[in-house]
Amino acid sequence: MDSEQVQADLFDAKCPSRQVLDRIGDRWSVLVVSTLAEGTLRHGEIAGRIGGITPKMLTQTLRGLERDGLARRTVYAEVPPRVEYALTDLGRDLVGLVRQLTRWAEVHIPDVEAARADYDARPTASRK
Amino acid sequence: MDSEQVQADLFDAKCPSRQVLDRIGDRWSVLVVSTLAEGTLRHGEIAGRIGGITPKMLTQTLRGLERDGLARRTVYAEVPPRVEYALTDLGRDLVGLVRQLTRWAEVHIPDVEAARADYDARPTASRK
Repeated sequence: MDSEQVQADLFDAKCPSRQVLDRIGDRWSVLVVSTLAEGTLRHGEIAGRIGGITPKMLTQTLRGLERDGLARRTVYAEVPPRVEYALTDLGRDLVGLVRQLTRWAEVHIPDVEAARADYDARPTASRK
Repeated sequence: MDSEQVQADLFDAKCPSRQVLDRIGDRWSVLVVSTLAEGTLRHGEIAGRIGGITPKMLTQTLRGLERDGLARRTVYAEVPPRVEYALTDLGRDLVGLVRQLTRWAEVHIPDVEAARADYDARPTASRK
């Protein structure tokens, strides 16, 4: 092994793993990866499945996923042109983790909401 | 079961699971939960373990984790007062997932960096 090889370490301020984490922990990225796990889709089809995502935000997210190697964009030279999105092998490798994130978030809504209600009911001084 | 009970669904724009996801996918939350998995710590001790986190950002993150029921803050009436942070049971339930996120991010740096280099080297027109 190359003795100069740097160990990845999320705790290190300069580690590139931080940008990777920003991507995989991003709300819209999680939703788009989840959606594309079902198969190849067009922009409008993805947008239709994700409540509240604006076309612009979806385009930004798809570009980010493509740039990061998680999704692939294919343009078919038809009239009009057809553009489809799919997960890459790397994106597919992330699906299991994305599903766990989704499940944890959905299952623990009552716990988090109860904690927030308790916290918000406390006298302000006690939170300092 | 209450027939009015709403099923959690991350794809629904109004679902509270989205705020939970924003918390568990947040870079600093991931780092702080990871750090507290080791045990109870003071603010300065946590800050010392996480490269690049400002005191203000750490305070914000700890408050958010406390409000969301993932961390607990204990004030000891000493002189000067001692304040310690620890994971709650809910926070501890998240540790496995946080470790997987960290590992995936660290392991896949080369894949993501290679994809970014390819993407950035493409003629601009081909990205549209």
